Amino acid sequence: MARPSNRAPDEMRRVSLERSVARYAEGSCLVKFGETHVIVTASVEERAPAWLRGSGKGWVTAEYSMLPRATHERTRRESTAGKPSGRTQEIQRLIGRSLRSVVDLTALNERQITVDCDVIQADGGTRTASITGAWVALHDCFQWMIARQMIPANPLKDHVAAISCGISHGVPVLDLDYAEDSVAETDANFVMTGSGGIVEVQGTAEGAPFSEEELLSLMGLAKQGVAKLVDLQKLAVA
Amino acid sequence: MARPSNRAPDEMRRVSLERSVARYAEGSCLVKFGETHVIVTASVEERAPAWLRGSGKGWVTAEYSMLPRATHERTRRESTAGKPSGRTQEIQRLIGRSLRSVVDLTALNERQITVDCDVIQADGGTRTASITGAWVALHDCFQWMIARQMIPANPLKDHVAAISCGISHGVPVLDLDYAEDSVAETDANFVMTGSGGIVEVQGTAEGAPFSEEELLSLMGLAKQGVAKLVDLQKLAVA
Amino acid sequence: MARPSNRAPDEMRRVSLERSVARYAEGSCLVKFGETHVIVTASVEERAPAWLRGSGKGWVTAEYSMLPRATHERTRRESTAGKPSGRTQEIQRLIGRSLRSVVDLTALNERQITVDCDVIQADGGTRTASITGAWVALHDCFQWMIARQMIPANPLKDHVAAISCGISHGVPVLDLDYAEDSVAETDANFVMTGSGGIVEVQGTAEGAPFSEEELLSLMGLAKQGVAKLVDLQKLAVA
Amino acid sequence: MARPSNRAPDEMRRVSLERSVARYAEGSCLVKFGETHVIVTASVEERAPAWLRGSGKGWVTAEYSMLPRATHERTRRESTAGKPSGRTQEIQRLIGRSLRSVVDLTALNERQITVDCDVIQADGGTRTASITGAWVALHDCFQWMIARQMIPANPLKDHVAAISCGISHGVPVLDLDYAEDSVAETDANFVMTGSGGIVEVQGTAEGAPFSEEELLSLMGLAKQGVAKLVDLQKLAVA
Amino acid sequence: MARPSNRAPDEMRRVSLERSVARYAEGSCLVKFGETHVIVTASVEERAPAWLRGSGKGWVTAEYSMLPRATHERTRRESTAGKPSGRTQEIQRLIGRSLRSVVDLTALNERQITVDCDVIQADGGTRTASITGAWVALHDCFQWMIARQMIPANPLKDHVAAISCGISHGVPVLDLDYAEDSVAETDANFVMTGSGGIVEVQGTAEGAPFSEEELLSLMGLAKQGVAKLVDLQKLAVA
Amino acid sequence: MARPSNRAPDEMRRVSLERSVARYAEGSCLVKFGETHVIVTASVEERAPAWLRGSGKGWVTAEYSMLPRATHERTRRESTAGKPSGRTQEIQRLIGRSLRSVVDLTALNERQITVDCDVIQADGGTRTASITGAWVALHDCFQWMIARQMIPANPLKDHVAAISCGISHGVPVLDLDYAEDSVAETDANFVMTGSGGIVEVQGTAEGAPFSEEELLSLMGLAKQGVAKLVDLQKLAVA
Repeated sequence: MARPSNRAPDEMRRVSLERSVARYAEGSCLVKFGETHVIVTASVEERAPAWLRGSGKGWVTAEYSMLPRATHERTRRESTAGKPSGRTQEIQRLIGRSLRSVVDLTALNERQITVDCDVIQADGGTRTASITGAWVALHDCFQWMIARQMIPANPLKDHVAAISCGISHGVPVLDLDYAEDSVAETDANFVMTGSGGIVEVQGTAEGAPFSEEELLSLMGLAKQGVAKLVDLQKLAVA
Repeated sequence: MARPSNRAPDEMRRVSLERSVARYAEGSCLVKFGETHVIVTASVEERAPAWLRGSGKGWVTAEYSMLPRATHERTRRESTAGKPSGRTQEIQRLIGRSLRSVVDLTALNERQITVDCDVIQADGGTRTASITGAWVALHDCFQWMIARQMIPANPLKDHVAAISCGISHGVPVLDLDYAEDSVAETDANFVMTGSGGIVEVQGTAEGAPFSEEELLSLMGLAKQGVAKLVDLQKLAVA
Repeated sequence: MARPSNRAPDEMRRVSLERSVARYAEGSCLVKFGETHVIVTASVEERAPAWLRGSGKGWVTAEYSMLPRATHERTRRESTAGKPSGRTQEIQRLIGRSLRSVVDLTALNERQITVDCDVIQADGGTRTASITGAWVALHDCFQWMIARQMIPANPLKDHVAAISCGISHGVPVLDLDYAEDSVAETDANFVMTGSGGIVEVQGTAEGAPFSEEELLSLMGLAKQGVAKLVDLQKLAVA
Repeated sequence: MARPSNRAPDEMRRVSLERSVARYAEGSCLVKFGETHVIVTASVEERAPAWLRGSGKGWVTAEYSMLPRATHERTRRESTAGKPSGRTQEIQRLIGRSLRSVVDLTALNERQITVDCDVIQADGGTRTASITGAWVALHDCFQWMIARQMIPANPLKDHVAAISCGISHGVPVLDLDYAEDSVAETDANFVMTGSGGIVEVQGTAEGAPFSEEELLSLMGLAKQGVAKLVDLQKLAVA
Repeated sequence: MARPSNRAPDEMRRVSLERSVARYAEGSCLVKFGETHVIVTASVEERAPAWLRGSGKGWVTAEYSMLPRATHERTRRESTAGKPSGRTQEIQRLIGRSLRSVVDLTALNERQITVDCDVIQADGGTRTASITGAWVALHDCFQWMIARQMIPANPLKDHVAAISCGISHGVPVLDLDYAEDSVAETDANFVMTGSGGIVEVQGTAEGAPFSEEELLSLMGLAKQGVAKLVDLQKLAVA
Repeated sequence: MARPSNRAPDEMRRVSLERSVARYAEGSCLVKFGETHVIVTASVEERAPAWLRGSGKGWVTAEYSMLPRATHERTRRESTAGKPSGRTQEIQRLIGRSLRSVVDLTALNERQITVDCDVIQADGGTRTASITGAWVALHDCFQWMIARQMIPANPLKDHVAAISCGISHGVPVLDLDYAEDSVAETDANFVMTGSGGIVEVQGTAEGAPFSEEELLSLMGLAKQGVAKLVDLQKLAVA
């Protein structure tokens, strides 16, 4: 049974990471996973959140949004709805946690970096694309700070990238697009570091429950995928 | 290195499931995982969400809240804050998904069941306790509907229960209380069915990333824990 | 004409006041007026409201909420609605005023006590039960503060308790439950001190207006009721 | 001890009721209790609230607001704050209940009358002035409906008016202005009908609790005051 | 083709400017443009907005609202809707900008003046009436400050007033009322100073686009109208 | 005195209009005025606003937003703030009015087109760029509808485009960028049709008032600018 995209089960979409796409941001990246496009910017603020005052530590936080017509059907703006949806909040908490796992927060010295992930076009995997592109924006933001002697060295301790996997028609597949995601029996997102450690795993049975073996096969695919994404990050900032 | 509670690594807290604790609800359960206490009620509404009209299918949804002084420090009410927090929304989405995975929604016939999980006292693991107790409240709600000939048979296809695991001082441990959760290096929640299928797995590295082996050892603990919880559910509704 | 509960006109429901029901709160009480159950907690905060800064005075405030399924029909959560309803705000203002009438606020020294009244089950009289139970929670909270030498003596100047009365089928009756409250012609709440002073009286004609004589007969019932409640408070903290 | 206004204890402020002050409203009244000025309008809507559909009954509801500079210090607008305050909601619920007590709602036939009370200038007693003026606006609104054959007769069953009383320096006094209200030991609002029935009584001890005798003396003053207000209403609509 | 009001094309409605209509405000004016009535108050606050701290400059800001029944049909309160509408915000921004154009903000010395424009009755032209009346309220507020030696001289550099014009049935007309505004092809508001300078011009084609010549003829009418309004302002504060 | 951009007074920035930039929208355009970049999409909805039901007419509405880091300093998201700002609402009302002035709404037959203008990068003139690009997105959306036989012909009656002008250091200049806009004495936006009619003019004195002559010279510049923009629109859709 072929995938809707005709990709092999372990084949990712074409991924690109374009730096410096936002003229005013300290770091930025346009990340594309196939038809999923996300503009990520990193902004430095000379003030950490209130609960960190006096701690000497800084913070990295993330916000996530989609343009109303990033999707097949137009989605109502969250500013009109009055608040970010539960899904949006869940995603921005995930992105923030993932990035903080590879940043030496003490080196930031009570500054906050806000990473904005704005989805221009959505074809599945927006959160994993966001995390992957955010690493590049964050890297360049830190280089910008080094150039201004705000920090002595880059506080990134490792790479971090993310990919989705799923079980579709009984077959474990890598990097689901929207068409595949809508019908997959199981959906899992993996956030992993450059050295192969797991930062976050989220697996959900959309239909029937899945087995430990299935989870392991998804993890195998994810490892391959993240390794390729980390290579692309290295190329992007080289 | 002993656990703060002096429990063995694979030892859960004392769990109890008390039925029919809310006089007016169609189904209810007071679930206790040690000092974590949650009142769960299930309420039938003769109207499915708008997007299900005409489909013949029903819905199960969940809401979650904590009393302001369920916690060590008083927490601000979300009604005063104007909206449920991101954490609250993430938890209620998880509870809803978990329950729906074992319910035949077609059998509900355009009705909605709202499961309310109100945490009276919080000592870690409130979401896993909620899911475990919710199954009992839902079971009794469905029995109430059968007694009134609203449905011919119980639409529950299986048990579902949840437990947290973590890595604390390098050791995989089962069912973290608040003291342990605050310092654990890795924290994972597993939602599993009575037949051992995985419905949801969420693992997060709080400090250093974790390895595949560590994830597997946590899953082993979770399987044991959920099996015991399912036995307690069976006793509770027997 | 018998009351729905078969009680005598001047007969209250069974009242109980259980202390120390919330593990983490500085003072707490589970108060039951028959099938009306309220968990009350008292929480100390080392900061008075902004408008008291520099005054040397402290404050006692109250918040009130009902679990969604405390009632016969499920009620929408106020966190979802975005704000506390008018009824909720009216009740929490009443509880706060009632408690402050018997507290020496100067003795609190720019601290605030927040009293949370969470209705677990509602069968009429939730505001009067809340006030009655709140006195116990507040008492224990102050004892807790004395034990930590935060204050030299208990700032409670007197007891305060509350009871509802009404005219039902032309007969003045004490302590209305939900069934009686729904059909009563007149409904009145009295908040009184241990020494018999009136702190608050709120009488409302639900149907025809009532006379001064009727108001006086309701007050007579209320005096008896509050006297009994004060005796129960004394027993509870003895 | 003289009152700040030099009035006798049982002397009200100068009260005026001016009809037809709002060109577009079906009924309107500018009510003045001394320096307290309120514009009241009554608006007919051809649609009762959702919960009355099919009942054949109509509804009367009230809204209350103050211009930001009605008060000595400017008050923030509630549209900017995002919601009516607790005090506002309490007052508009009181006005609505008071008016409904003298209206035959069945005669309205699933229409809603909204009574808007907008305080132009506030010197104490805004809620009692609002109720007193609202009766006039409502009367004229019903006459407007009769003239258009929407209803056959005026659904007002009686007059309703309201006055505040208080204990100031130990003396029971009638119709408190702001200066007196700020220091009174006890504050009570009475809503009464033209035939002398009590619709609502709300008494609050601001300082020490008050006695039954004191409540009775306040009620005696209120009866006199309301009788005069009802006479003024009769003159106004004559 | 006669105007609905039978006025000549260049004839304004009867305009009146009544000072000191609000007992507690530092400056106030009841402005009437025919049946459009607006109460304007000016309030001094000893604190400039946060972004002016340390600049030595003060600020003038405006808020605008309509009573719910100022209009032919009752309008929902913005406090109930939860926020000021887009139209309201647009108008209050315009009023604020217009006033600031004639005030020496440096002379205010980090104080803020809030000008509240509350429409009591609306028959078209509420924003232009508000600006015209606000100048009077502001003038008197500054005189009040001079009297208290808060400022040495009146910081008003010039008069400012506003008027609407439009093209109705092909004819340029001055000062549209509601009936005319509803059907005009083009609608323009002009804010001008006493010395004839333009502060703001806003012209909108409601139907077909308009030409430069038409805009010029509207401007000609507006100049005449504003000159008369400035004369009335001079009389009012004389 | 040279312009910051070294452009001649009547020289616009480089403008480009790129069609079909959003894969899922019925019409779209990436419009660039120099460093100001806006993605515009047009979305068809088979349901007109409630107040048009039964009228046979359709509607065109616009929404406007900026990515948080479109600007020099990061701006807070309006979804977090809870509502669109006054500025945002003012702009989206302007865009909607401008587009409706050239659309035959009757031809839309109770459908709504929502035009979303999302500013990716902001260097002044975002509202004029939005209107200019929106015409292209709307044109293509209507062609899409024609292709599906939803409408027989393109309901666009004319072109519409917009440009800003201002007086900077005493010189009338065309198409202000952010640096110039921040210091200009007068700022004006003109919305004009392909046939040279004025749809909207908004002129504001930022410092001293401006004269009629100055307004006319700005209008002269605007006419030239809009004519060029209309030529570019023609090229874009050719």
